[in-house]
Amino acid sequence: MQRYFLEDFLLLDQKTIQVTGDVFHHITRVLRMNKEDKVYLVFQNEQSFLAKILKIETNYVIFSLLEKENQVKELPIKITIAHGFPKKEKLDLIIQKGTELGAYSIIAFPSDRSIPKWDAKKLLKKQKRLTKIAKKASEQSQRTHMPLVELLNSKQDLLNKFKNYDFVVVVYEKAAKKDGQSQLAQFLTKIKKSAKMLVIFGPEGGLSIEEVEVFLANKAFIVGLGPRILRAETAPLYFLSVISYELELRLKN
Amino acid sequence: MQRYFLEDFLLLDQKTIQVTGDVFHHITRVLRMNKEDKVYLVFQNEQSFLAKILKIETNYVIFSLLEKENQVKELPIKITIAHGFPKKEKLDLIIQKGTELGAYSIIAFPSDRSIPKWDAKKLLKKQKRLTKIAKKASEQSQRTHMPLVELLNSKQDLLNKFKNYDFVVVVYEKAAKKDGQSQLAQFLTKIKKSAKMLVIFGPEGGLSIEEVEVFLANKAFIVGLGPRILRAETAPLYFLSVISYELELRLKN
Repeated sequence: MQRYFLEDFLLLDQKTIQVTGDVFHHITRVLRMNKEDKVYLVFQNEQSFLAKILKIETNYVIFSLLEKENQVKELPIKITIAHGFPKKEKLDLIIQKGTELGAYSIIAFPSDRSIPKWDAKKLLKKQKRLTKIAKKASEQSQRTHMPLVELLNSKQDLLNKFKNYDFVVVVYEKAAKKDGQSQLAQFLTKIKKSAKMLVIFGPEGGLSIEEVEVFLANKAFIVGLGPRILRAETAPLYFLSVISYELELRLKN
Repeated sequence: MQRYFLEDFLLLDQKTIQVTGDVFHHITRVLRMNKEDKVYLVFQNEQSFLAKILKIETNYVIFSLLEKENQVKELPIKITIAHGFPKKEKLDLIIQKGTELGAYSIIAFPSDRSIPKWDAKKLLKKQKRLTKIAKKASEQSQRTHMPLVELLNSKQDLLNKFKNYDFVVVVYEKAAKKDGQSQLAQFLTKIKKSAKMLVIFGPEGGLSIEEVEVFLANKAFIVGLGPRILRAETAPLYFLSVISYELELRLKN
């Protein structure tokens, strides 16, 4: 069912809401919906409701809120992906798929081996476009949270963020197994629900040794993702899938 | 390091090999390699060797095989992805990423809700192109096995293959949790190493109920992949990542 993250709206009473802007436009011009049609509406507080169209006017739609959606759609831990600027349009894929797979927010930063050099103006433009991709993917995958997308000017900006997280993890292909079990599996046994985790991935050429050392000196953990070499844009999808499996499917709740 | 799946070669003695064809062309014309440069060479029996260029001639390269590569690169179970024909070029992504993530082979079939209608000629052409993508991704991800790509003419062709597998799994978003743990997690506790598994995914609109019922009547298991709705092309990547984590990273070997 169609789903919208609300921006321009007015609560008329506890059960009735008037919606304008992009959502109004999409409902009337793109999908040409009618009275009685149903959608999910997601509020900024991450509550979502099944809603029915009561009335369509020239500039707004009025919905009746039918019931609150109860299924939990968000990962039990908040994962921020931090990716070294990759080539071409690969951030599009990382953001679309990362959103589907439950990332809480997605950061990109200029890594030592990043090929693209984006100035402040370009970063802002890109960030806007990527935010739209994240919004669309959040709606499509039926989430209640829309990931924040942030493109950083420097690696120092990334280091400054470390203090906001309970854990910082560096994904590095040269991480070895210990005692027969991978560091990733060992690390995940330590994670508590609602933890905030920053996970750092390199661009096409990988992270430089110097970068990894700086991250480790700032208390990051290092993990590998198995014996095959994953492309830069595939690694975060692997990581998020594993977190979902481990915390949403494998553990008995 | 550059890696090649060998096709046209001649073993001169136990440690020396003469290579022609595409590999010769890539080494001399694309990468412009020189004497002493090293690559990995993978034989059709899935053994791989570190090799050094001894001599470059007009039509062939001669390598010395230095040592056998020992690290296991392949998943401990053989997973065949079967995907309902998706729209546009999405099979490209499924094959590239599915190969990186360790699929043993990849099948696509006309599912009830598949939009594209591809005739036999188109299927053959597509299959050739997709096989090249699988080969390139196998080299890039440093595998020793190159997935076979097969595009089927009918769903019956898929059903006829069920007997070749130890398990057939249907990924269906409406699969529910049982006893607090997902069917996927429960199912994976049953898997033995070296099992052959066929895993079926629907196209954009999902599998039809009729299809799912036919698969179940043919002894397939049904599993879901968590609370968020994944796009058609994302679901197999999630599944393969989870298998890798469960069998390569989490279990102590």
